[in-house]
Amino acid sequence: MLRWAEYDDPAPGPAEVLVEVAASAVNRADLLQRMGLYPPPPGVSDTLGLECSGRIVALGDGVSGWQVGQPVCALLAGGGQAELVVVPVGQVMPVPAGVDLATAAALPEVGCTVWSNLVLLAHLAAGEALLVHGGASGIGTMAIQVASAIGATVITTAGTTEKLATCRELGAASAVNYHDEDFVAAARDATGGSGVDVILDIMGATYLDRNIHALATNGRLVIIGMQGGTRAELDLATLLSKRAAVHATSLRHRPLHEKAAICAAVVAGLWPLIEAGQVRPVVGATYPMSQVAEAHRLVAEGGHTGKVVLTVS
Amino acid sequence: MLRWAEYDDPAPGPAEVLVEVAASAVNRADLLQRMGLYPPPPGVSDTLGLECSGRIVALGDGVSGWQVGQPVCALLAGGGQAELVVVPVGQVMPVPAGVDLATAAALPEVGCTVWSNLVLLAHLAAGEALLVHGGASGIGTMAIQVASAIGATVITTAGTTEKLATCRELGAASAVNYHDEDFVAAARDATGGSGVDVILDIMGATYLDRNIHALATNGRLVIIGMQGGTRAELDLATLLSKRAAVHATSLRHRPLHEKAAICAAVVAGLWPLIEAGQVRPVVGATYPMSQVAEAHRLVAEGGHTGKVVLTVS
Repeated sequence: MLRWAEYDDPAPGPAEVLVEVAASAVNRADLLQRMGLYPPPPGVSDTLGLECSGRIVALGDGVSGWQVGQPVCALLAGGGQAELVVVPVGQVMPVPAGVDLATAAALPEVGCTVWSNLVLLAHLAAGEALLVHGGASGIGTMAIQVASAIGATVITTAGTTEKLATCRELGAASAVNYHDEDFVAAARDATGGSGVDVILDIMGATYLDRNIHALATNGRLVIIGMQGGTRAELDLATLLSKRAAVHATSLRHRPLHEKAAICAAVVAGLWPLIEAGQVRPVVGATYPMSQVAEAHRLVAEGGHTGKVVLTVS
Repeated sequence: MLRWAEYDDPAPGPAEVLVEVAASAVNRADLLQRMGLYPPPPGVSDTLGLECSGRIVALGDGVSGWQVGQPVCALLAGGGQAELVVVPVGQVMPVPAGVDLATAAALPEVGCTVWSNLVLLAHLAAGEALLVHGGASGIGTMAIQVASAIGATVITTAGTTEKLATCRELGAASAVNYHDEDFVAAARDATGGSGVDVILDIMGATYLDRNIHALATNGRLVIIGMQGGTRAELDLATLLSKRAAVHATSLRHRPLHEKAAICAAVVAGLWPLIEAGQVRPVVGATYPMSQVAEAHRLVAEGGHTGKVVLTVS
């Protein structure tokens, strides 16, 4: 059962700040955690919420460069769906200029996930081609825009005509309906037959073989979700003939120094794109925190586009 | 049938040099090519030989920085088991000081393979741990020494007591007999339980799952051979929980500019280690070119250690 209840106020330790939460957002990981499939890392609150926005209300020992009252957003290992949350200082980010405080809660997870995978890991470059699965999701809408801003050609998949249209509006050159179109053929068509340089995948097992076949020489498949299962046959001969790579990553269990490095790269690289209007946060629905169960249902059904935000009223 | 026969002399085109071959070496790829399983890339001689040493006898148009008479060794896409071979200039390398001309023929393939995969691709670093399969092979003997010179801890596998002893002499901290020991357990034992950071694998399918389990967080599995098959189930959940990667690569089909970049990195990075005595070429047997069939039998049986060299007499 999901409920909004009274807890003791947390206090910031050394190198932490206390944030009064204005908003959080729902992630698919929240649904898995609710079902007991994705427990928080050791020492982390079992309150849901992998991101938030709000104002700093207290600084722990040794924190500099931040001020009480400052509006921020933050990447969290948990605990964001609350009135107060303690955040390691390396995961606190300023709110990009032009983004309102509630909307800023929709940025940390997709911003850090997309930037760390496409830019820091896969080194997606101008002139390359990216295939993004689930282009209308929170991750997808951010990935399409970031890749377009980098100068990459984007091919994406989605499940409804409306979502496909959203993907194209955000910059996708090609958007295919995964119900009845072949994304491998679409990836080849969009690249003169050579395949895509990078794939950002959320399906895992069910797409593994097709993803490998959609890759170009020197291609990089980056798996960040396993909605289609966790075990599948890998065609090593094709991987080797393409000199390609399969990466699988996640954010939540990384050590603090890696999360801090990612947040710093996001502030340095992504925030300017948002402030210049090249990338915009896509929020498909907003609920008050007390209606978190309703928000989870929406995400589970996948009817939304972009992020689902939860506000503290 | 393998035979040493008369062919027309080749001539160097633009950006090529003609080398009078002193020696070549046998690679496992030669055995596959002999069986029709590994054809040369388009436009490449079907004469065997992926590497050679010798002296430059002619320079093609636009070649500078090299002189007729200069002793060299070279990475080839084929044709090295001959008296004369044409080499793209980016794949010509000086003979490291202190290495005799025949022995230099044993360096290009293993040098470029090991350096490109461990250093340029996997970024193996001091303090990390490397697992090398087939540690007594040409690739293995080079990888053990290069990793040790970098300051990495090396765990290796081999099939006989004698080969295991060779691996240890070359710097391996741990050498396990793949016939009756568990390399996953050995990899964990040698790393305080955390697993290895990089694996250089020649087996492919049969080792895929165990290799994934032997990796540390942020580990990189680099597959350069598929002696154990080409298709196997990949455990994506374990890969993701480790934020690890599976790379598969080969040298032969790369474009000239990539081969040139690798050769330049080898000359800049590996040759100084050889000249300082930290890495030495390991040659297990030498045959005259006319006994190439005998040399292939030795490689097929795997009784040798290091490289098998073929000399032109």
